[in-house]
Amino acid sequence: MDEFGLINTFFKDKSQFLNSNKIFSSGSFIGIGDDASVFTPPPGFDLVVSSDLLVEGTHFKKEHSPESIGHKVLAVNLSDIAAMGAEPLCFTLSINLQSLDMNWLNRFCDGIFKLANDTSCKLIGGDTVKSKDNSLMFFAVTVMGIVPSGRVLKRESVQLNDDIWISGSLGDPSEALKHNFFSKKLITPEPRIALGKKLLGIANSAIDISDGLSGDLLHLIVESSKNLEKKIFATIDFLSICSCLDSYLFSRYLKNELTLKDCCKLAVSSGDEYELCFTAPEHLRYQIESTSLELKLPLTRIGKIISEKESKKLFNSDTTPSIIWLDEKGIPLSVKDSPSGGFSHF
Amino acid sequence: MDEFGLINTFFKDKSQFLNSNKIFSSGSFIGIGDDASVFTPPPGFDLVVSSDLLVEGTHFKKEHSPESIGHKVLAVNLSDIAAMGAEPLCFTLSINLQSLDMNWLNRFCDGIFKLANDTSCKLIGGDTVKSKDNSLMFFAVTVMGIVPSGRVLKRESVQLNDDIWISGSLGDPSEALKHNFFSKKLITPEPRIALGKKLLGIANSAIDISDGLSGDLLHLIVESSKNLEKKIFATIDFLSICSCLDSYLFSRYLKNELTLKDCCKLAVSSGDEYELCFTAPEHLRYQIESTSLELKLPLTRIGKIISEKESKKLFNSDTTPSIIWLDEKGIPLSVKDSPSGGFSHF
Repeated sequence: MDEFGLINTFFKDKSQFLNSNKIFSSGSFIGIGDDASVFTPPPGFDLVVSSDLLVEGTHFKKEHSPESIGHKVLAVNLSDIAAMGAEPLCFTLSINLQSLDMNWLNRFCDGIFKLANDTSCKLIGGDTVKSKDNSLMFFAVTVMGIVPSGRVLKRESVQLNDDIWISGSLGDPSEALKHNFFSKKLITPEPRIALGKKLLGIANSAIDISDGLSGDLLHLIVESSKNLEKKIFATIDFLSICSCLDSYLFSRYLKNELTLKDCCKLAVSSGDEYELCFTAPEHLRYQIESTSLELKLPLTRIGKIISEKESKKLFNSDTTPSIIWLDEKGIPLSVKDSPSGGFSHF
Repeated sequence: MDEFGLINTFFKDKSQFLNSNKIFSSGSFIGIGDDASVFTPPPGFDLVVSSDLLVEGTHFKKEHSPESIGHKVLAVNLSDIAAMGAEPLCFTLSINLQSLDMNWLNRFCDGIFKLANDTSCKLIGGDTVKSKDNSLMFFAVTVMGIVPSGRVLKRESVQLNDDIWISGSLGDPSEALKHNFFSKKLITPEPRIALGKKLLGIANSAIDISDGLSGDLLHLIVESSKNLEKKIFATIDFLSICSCLDSYLFSRYLKNELTLKDCCKLAVSSGDEYELCFTAPEHLRYQIESTSLELKLPLTRIGKIISEKESKKLFNSDTTPSIIWLDEKGIPLSVKDSPSGGFSHF
């Protein structure tokens, strides 16, 4: 089977199952098969674009099921779209395969198109390469989404006194990698698209925490400090993280293998999480709790954005960390006791 | 250096050299650094999207200069944008590197940003991965361009009696690969963006001939036959290809290593060409010749689109090939003498 046969068999036909998106049912849309794809962006919307690379051995293992690899390849990109508050529109998929295993490819397509259909995200193009036999398998995806003009959720728009929230629970993906057990969250992460859209007009800023909460929250703080032209700080009630622990991690506490503090430490530095961390004004707490009920998705308030002056009151030192972890009495943990990844000189 | 340092050093700063594109100097543009990039597509335009994968060993050799690899990675994508008659807008770049060689990366960036600046195509995002040491180096690019709404040059809109044209010259890239000599066209192909834009309103259809003229012309014929709901055929004056031969290939004729016919045969199946093949009505010949002079780019009329009835007059057989190669007397070459890649049962 040549490249055109491959595209027609696996990618062109399946992508036509999806006609829910009006942009792509118009006469002017050109999809797979021309030099490039063409569509008319809807007026009144901004275009949101995210590209990610998933490489065998680094982002997935060859022994994972093809369906789950297909799912994850699209899901991690959709998570970035969700973090902007955007609605998925379409994607391109470029593939490097070592060999043409029809059964594998069929199952991979089942995984990716199931998620594409569920999220109304249409495959519009891409590239297929079969390189040397000893090369790694990898996938490059570019997802495009739309958001009403000027309303996108940025990293840099955190405001003073914002509450800090996270969705879902944390910890199992990293544990699964370390202890080699099956974690649905690691294998088939669920992008928080519905939440992202709901947060438009509620949240001031958002980020997906694929690199771990502590590191990604730091990005929010650093980018927003630049934008506000003054330093801002985050305080996190460390034990509020307890209520967001994933089940395997929590079971290790129950079995006395770890203290609660250790569990929280692991949870906030766990990567491969595709939850959203967002900040919002205090007066919208009720609305956020209603959203949580509506989406049947836990949303936990874990901390607050404070000023430099307030941070100095808490942390009497020249080198106040950007993220201040508070114990149950509201007293900052020492840098030694704090999770890593939350410190930056900016 | 971590991923953020890498992005800031090599990619974020350099992309800011480019401010010619008004879309990206507006306040609403978000570039590298957030979960995704955001921009407002200009009203009245369609968006053109192309994704390509370039893998070491398959699309470039490790021993090629980093500048030329940088150039080619973007150029092959821009060629697809050019074939749609679109103007380049922006691109995402995802990279898998085996190691962090700062000198190599600097020179790679010189190559890619030189072309990006020359074509006003802004880097807006991407991904960087360092996978296992034994992995191949590869690059995934998604380029976006714009074209006035509804005016894109499609593959499927060839019309009966159209002239068939090609830009530039053919043959050296394949020869360079076979005989291992330096070919500027192979190493640093020049996307025909200015030509593509000029062809809007002149050409009925266009394709870039990266897979070779005979194969890619066949795509035009097949797609347009479907669209017209009747079979159409292309006649090519085989010896008109003589005037489009690249210098190395032509020198092989002069040295009596090849006949002219052999040279033409090689030229029409040479891949890695980034010229445009387009069709246009007869009455626009003068305008196309003026465009050629203006752009200082040879544009050669090589054949014609004919009906099934006309093809039957030429080729008295049940299995008329979609592309009919004519000799100097206007008589079809036998299938045996014809270049490969021009036949399809559709």
